[in-house]
Amino acid sequence: MKQAVLSLSGGMDSSTLLLHLLNNDYEVTALNFDYGQKHRVELERAQQLVDYLRDSSYTVKYQVIKLEGLSTLLNSALVTGGEEVPEGHYAEDNMKATVVPNRNKIFASITQAVALSIAETKNTECVIALGIHAGDHAIYPDCRQEFRDADYEAFKQGNWDADKVKYYTPYLDGDKFNILEDGEFCCEKLGLDFDEVYKRTNTSYKPTAEGLSDYKSASSVERIEAFIEIGRKDPVEYVDGWEVAKKHVEELLASHA
Amino acid sequence: MKQAVLSLSGGMDSSTLLLHLLNNDYEVTALNFDYGQKHRVELERAQQLVDYLRDSSYTVKYQVIKLEGLSTLLNSALVTGGEEVPEGHYAEDNMKATVVPNRNKIFASITQAVALSIAETKNTECVIALGIHAGDHAIYPDCRQEFRDADYEAFKQGNWDADKVKYYTPYLDGDKFNILEDGEFCCEKLGLDFDEVYKRTNTSYKPTAEGLSDYKSASSVERIEAFIEIGRKDPVEYVDGWEVAKKHVEELLASHA
Repeated sequence: MKQAVLSLSGGMDSSTLLLHLLNNDYEVTALNFDYGQKHRVELERAQQLVDYLRDSSYTVKYQVIKLEGLSTLLNSALVTGGEEVPEGHYAEDNMKATVVPNRNKIFASITQAVALSIAETKNTECVIALGIHAGDHAIYPDCRQEFRDADYEAFKQGNWDADKVKYYTPYLDGDKFNILEDGEFCCEKLGLDFDEVYKRTNTSYKPTAEGLSDYKSASSVERIEAFIEIGRKDPVEYVDGWEVAKKHVEELLASHA
Repeated sequence: MKQAVLSLSGGMDSSTLLLHLLNNDYEVTALNFDYGQKHRVELERAQQLVDYLRDSSYTVKYQVIKLEGLSTLLNSALVTGGEEVPEGHYAEDNMKATVVPNRNKIFASITQAVALSIAETKNTECVIALGIHAGDHAIYPDCRQEFRDADYEAFKQGNWDADKVKYYTPYLDGDKFNILEDGEFCCEKLGLDFDEVYKRTNTSYKPTAEGLSDYKSASSVERIEAFIEIGRKDPVEYVDGWEVAKKHVEELLASHA
């Protein structure tokens, strides 16, 4: 069977990509990373999605990798002990505080190790699936293709048989809207309920203690924008409800237009 | 104060490098990685060394980063659940089983994240100190300079302010003998007892449950060789005692000569 490793962050992009991989007959090992992030709800949602898929007869090997002892050493608003998470659109400067130093390089390195182990054990190729898309932001330098290329080169230099591991990035030329469209398509093909899938995702960097999403931080604004574009109500719960969240984003977009 | 981050593995090279950094007036953050390795004694020795240094009035910030959930996914003889660790000289082919996929890239990425956080928080430069030396083996591709260069390039592509983090590799052109020589020098300068330092290190991949070192696996053979060259008895305890260990290595070296 075709092998894939996926970082399942609990967000919209990687959750959709998981459906995409299942629909393309991959056996999926999904990793999630616990590095002391404030938005713990991501970890819960990823587990809930895997549980829902299993109940729908799709088995995913899901493993949380816990980086214990790291968060106190990091300088970032996103981990425990850091500053407040800033609000607003990604374009704004203060979003730099939401950078976790070298995060994607750490995640990529662990993911590569697992993919290479699978490739060697099963004596086959193993892809690393990434939900990156054209709408990703240059404010995070480790989301740029230049970083991905350099990181893969380092991986190749550091391992024999590295060419058994390839990247698979089906959304590279798309945006959040295209991803949600693919999600709709895969749900239909796989016999899954769209709302049941997407209420088991989280995009908010500032969820309430009860897990309600904010609608003002940059990542939430983008998610809401995609649901508006696709003409669906977002099944996750927002602090002031969907209509208020939707209105806020529509006004914000108008003011940036 | 000058800042340095060091992977303190509990081995001879990084332990010596720690002394070297203290002797060169660095404030040191020492990281150790718990990835489910069989040779747990490394973690204990590193802690013992840090404790001994503190008792000798040298403060080192020591943090174990635990990669929980990873070892079961890895394909290596070195982690729990893997095969037996093979014996012999590094030159032999079966040593490939002792490779942990992408290990140095994972460690490097986490170390870079910590170094960059220190550099940003203290608004200064921070070096990453590495005990790599010319005697390191090409059997581990992630010990080659080609890997280090590619990995640093990926780090630079993935982070703003990456140039605040530089590598410091004082042993690059030396070998294990030169490292031990530097250890002797630093012990004298710092007023430390050489034997007290080096009995708090471990190089054996196959220590007994009581922490006694084997003298047949490749890494042990190399360590013993260095102590023979420097004309000192190794203060760590070997399963059959130092004299037997020494004799074994002398014979092995003669047969390879």
